[in-house]
Amino acid sequence: VSDATERTRWWGWGAEEGRPRLGPAGAALVARELALDGGSDARAPAPPALGSVNLPESALPLEAARRLEARLGPGGVRTDRLARVARAAGKSYPDLVRLRSGEAPAAPDAVLVPTSPEGVASILEVCSELGVAVVPFGGGTSVVGGVTPRREGFAAAVSLDLGGLSGKVEVDRRSLTARVGPGTLGAVAEAELGAHGLTLGHFPQSYELATVGGFVATRSAGQASTGYGRIEDRVLGLTCATPSGELSVAPVPASAAGPSLRELVVGSEGILGVITGLTLAVEPAPEVRHYEGWSFRSFAEGVEALRVLTQAGAAPEVARLSDEEETRLSKGLAATGSSADLAGRAYLSLRGHAAGALAILGWEGESRVAARRRSRAARMLRAAGGLALGGGPGRSWARNRYAAPYLRDELMDMGALVDTLETATSWSGLLALHAGVSTAVRAALAGRGATPVVGCHVSHLYGSGASLYFTMLARAEPGREIEQWSAAKQAAGEAIVAHRATITHHHGVGCDHRRWMEAEVGPLGLEMLRSAKARLDPGGVMNPGKILPVSGEPGS
Amino acid sequence: VSDATERTRWWGWGAEEGRPRLGPAGAALVARELALDGGSDARAPAPPALGSVNLPESALPLEAARRLEARLGPGGVRTDRLARVARAAGKSYPDLVRLRSGEAPAAPDAVLVPTSPEGVASILEVCSELGVAVVPFGGGTSVVGGVTPRREGFAAAVSLDLGGLSGKVEVDRRSLTARVGPGTLGAVAEAELGAHGLTLGHFPQSYELATVGGFVATRSAGQASTGYGRIEDRVLGLTCATPSGELSVAPVPASAAGPSLRELVVGSEGILGVITGLTLAVEPAPEVRHYEGWSFRSFAEGVEALRVLTQAGAAPEVARLSDEEETRLSKGLAATGSSADLAGRAYLSLRGHAAGALAILGWEGESRVAARRRSRAARMLRAAGGLALGGGPGRSWARNRYAAPYLRDELMDMGALVDTLETATSWSGLLALHAGVSTAVRAALAGRGATPVVGCHVSHLYGSGASLYFTMLARAEPGREIEQWSAAKQAAGEAIVAHRATITHHHGVGCDHRRWMEAEVGPLGLEMLRSAKARLDPGGVMNPGKILPVSGEPGS
Repeated sequence: VSDATERTRWWGWGAEEGRPRLGPAGAALVARELALDGGSDARAPAPPALGSVNLPESALPLEAARRLEARLGPGGVRTDRLARVARAAGKSYPDLVRLRSGEAPAAPDAVLVPTSPEGVASILEVCSELGVAVVPFGGGTSVVGGVTPRREGFAAAVSLDLGGLSGKVEVDRRSLTARVGPGTLGAVAEAELGAHGLTLGHFPQSYELATVGGFVATRSAGQASTGYGRIEDRVLGLTCATPSGELSVAPVPASAAGPSLRELVVGSEGILGVITGLTLAVEPAPEVRHYEGWSFRSFAEGVEALRVLTQAGAAPEVARLSDEEETRLSKGLAATGSSADLAGRAYLSLRGHAAGALAILGWEGESRVAARRRSRAARMLRAAGGLALGGGPGRSWARNRYAAPYLRDELMDMGALVDTLETATSWSGLLALHAGVSTAVRAALAGRGATPVVGCHVSHLYGSGASLYFTMLARAEPGREIEQWSAAKQAAGEAIVAHRATITHHHGVGCDHRRWMEAEVGPLGLEMLRSAKARLDPGGVMNPGKILPVSGEPGS
Repeated sequence: VSDATERTRWWGWGAEEGRPRLGPAGAALVARELALDGGSDARAPAPPALGSVNLPESALPLEAARRLEARLGPGGVRTDRLARVARAAGKSYPDLVRLRSGEAPAAPDAVLVPTSPEGVASILEVCSELGVAVVPFGGGTSVVGGVTPRREGFAAAVSLDLGGLSGKVEVDRRSLTARVGPGTLGAVAEAELGAHGLTLGHFPQSYELATVGGFVATRSAGQASTGYGRIEDRVLGLTCATPSGELSVAPVPASAAGPSLRELVVGSEGILGVITGLTLAVEPAPEVRHYEGWSFRSFAEGVEALRVLTQAGAAPEVARLSDEEETRLSKGLAATGSSADLAGRAYLSLRGHAAGALAILGWEGESRVAARRRSRAARMLRAAGGLALGGGPGRSWARNRYAAPYLRDELMDMGALVDTLETATSWSGLLALHAGVSTAVRAALAGRGATPVVGCHVSHLYGSGASLYFTMLARAEPGREIEQWSAAKQAAGEAIVAHRATITHHHGVGCDHRRWMEAEVGPLGLEMLRSAKARLDPGGVMNPGKILPVSGEPGS
């Protein structure tokens, strides 16, 4: 299924059929909030036509093409327009801005489709020798520029599509482990595991379109990470093809045999090599999934409640607490004007929660165990000021849990800038980080004349702290969308670094967070990453321009 | 407290006062089992006298001594006999054999006692420049040769004692984190955390004498790791002094900012640098600690019960299941001959558990939560064939949980070889690994004429597998103790590698497991470790001869 990417919108998100929509009332609300010109009446621009995309000629050297074809066989080397345009970028806001305007200057010179780890090794060998940049490509859902080809001095760049490494999931039921091809889509792996009564428990927003190898290469954390852990908590063994040979980590439950090489490959985003095999820890599929809503009088009150819950070992599998602004907007979008809806508002208002913060908590597992955990948590949440809203908000969240990137397309159609960014810090630092980043992003956008909406939620809980996930919305500046976005992104990154939080909790580094890597890991930390890359990829062909700062950036 | 090491037996384990003892009946039993000459009547050899230890002259170059004294101040550079002999080796069986015979050829040429991270940096600078090997030394409890000075071509070697980096533990109660000086003893850190109502939950057998920095440098796993996780699960941030400068990892709860440099330092056993600061995740101290005994008709039945328990999310904090041989021996040692004891045996015999396997399970946490978890687990354990033995065996285990290394001294006095080794694999592979290693070790020892006892327990549970911890006992071959031990060790290592298990689950690599590192991480994995070392320690002075194979070993 190397063409999964091509069955979805190359200039946006997902398939054309059955897309989640804002609806007219929702669109009107957003238009009003952001003071969009034309509001909900504005006609969406026509999608760009593939044929008219500004696509450079393929610069793949003839010798490379010849040798790669010999190794990969017919169909292994594609230079057709759709293949190249569909892998010209990931799915970040600036990626989509460029693609929508019909520009694909970074498109790979070819798309390579190996069907085995040996095929991957061949590609790395040929490309290293001939100086062709190699961009590993899973589902292509990076929102940080992680799959955008960058030549960095090389004559050509190819995308190495991992769709061919997606065979059947092999399960060891007794050990609760599964061998998964790295090119397997998250949703496909989950369906196969489901047939064995198992789950990976990994549900990032990109779940339908991203690959399991991509999860590992980017240190992904799913929506249920509070319960099931991050992807690195699930990786037992792996193989990674590099220009210097194969790095192999045996799947043992734990080891004290020196530094962790597994943790060097996890999160390496293709700059060291290509993940060609994975053995993951899986879990019994839950008997029940119960998602419910809770309201708090304020974000601060809700954060405190989640902290207490987590530190008592009473956290749910899914935990998501919106701040007041995000709560206000999501209530507005969900409002139907029905009498039940109005009664609900009156109830919240009466209890002092009119401008409160909404939490979604999800309990999964054995039915009786989940029920007992849920009732213990309910006592603690009530004691912390929480108001139970029942299963309605939970079901609504679950229905829409993968919808946001579809809606982004619609918002962009309406002339909106829409982006998300995320970070994590200690419980002690969380509220100050929330205020700092919110204020910085609002100021950056307002300073350029927009009326921004900046909302945030906590969505991954740890004993020592939590993540913050920000969504920013504003009227886009036509023709200057990228500059506008850059100003907001820069302000956010500076605020994050000033608060000593991490520059990314689960999106990864890619191109967009490179400039803060020196602040993140220090000069010597950067040197360590450079030296690991130099050892495995002496020619520097592996996904150049990712993670490590490039010329002119701090730490370069 | 840089002299903690010196207040304990330098040729054995722990302080002289209040030592756990086998007792006459226990000693007689062991003597019988191992066919020891003289049995329990044999007179223990006199402990070696410090003054008569064969200690080479200090070879520390004068310039190094002068410059180090200038940096560290008076008392910072010690060359006295006790300081050097007490750091000549760790606490492995061959280490103690050599020290008991009055040999300390590897003793460091000096012991350096910095009192700050800056002091550590100074030492690394001077020693790198002058080509002096540096051995970081925490509690000195390595059982794999991790702190034994090896010159590897350098003129001299110094032990860098971290006792001076052991200031007050700083707690962030809200975030459940603690900054701990790496030289702080585990027991001291735990006591300080206890005063805040907190725990690190980390209780390796070396807990009383080992340091927190040592836990991290060796990827330690405590007796309660099933509940509290391994030490790497607790490390949030750290600083590591290296000859190339300081590597610093900020304490965030989680991050997707590239490969994990934290996981490169954890387990590095001093070959990359010296851990100078740690921020650890801590937990609320448990309200209750309830340890109890369970019996299974066989080790295999018990393993299956623990697997089911763990995979249902119902595992206790402490889990330890002895195989039939270890159960037999421990029951023999605990036997008092009282009527209660005899009645207990009759009961087990009646239920088909006469030659069964004993498990100790420990439940910790909030009192009501622990009780509920315990009763859920009890149902599952009964269904899996378990027989509840109540709190007696649990209390007995808890009383003696740190006793084994004290008893080793006594067993060595009696003329016994006594060593432990450990590994881990998947649940699917566990019984075959158990049989393979047991058989190999027994054969190696019996082949040299001993009547060995080889017992084993499972002691750290994971969803995907568990660890196996072997204890071997045999009559020592006088004058050929090290050859005898080597034969058993080699047989065990080969069996572990043949079963594709890890060569060490929590003891670390040191010198003793180096030769299996190529099998563990592959040739390219070794190259990665070498390249990380070359970048941080270009002169190669950091703990030479540890982790990485040396000349003549596979992968060298």
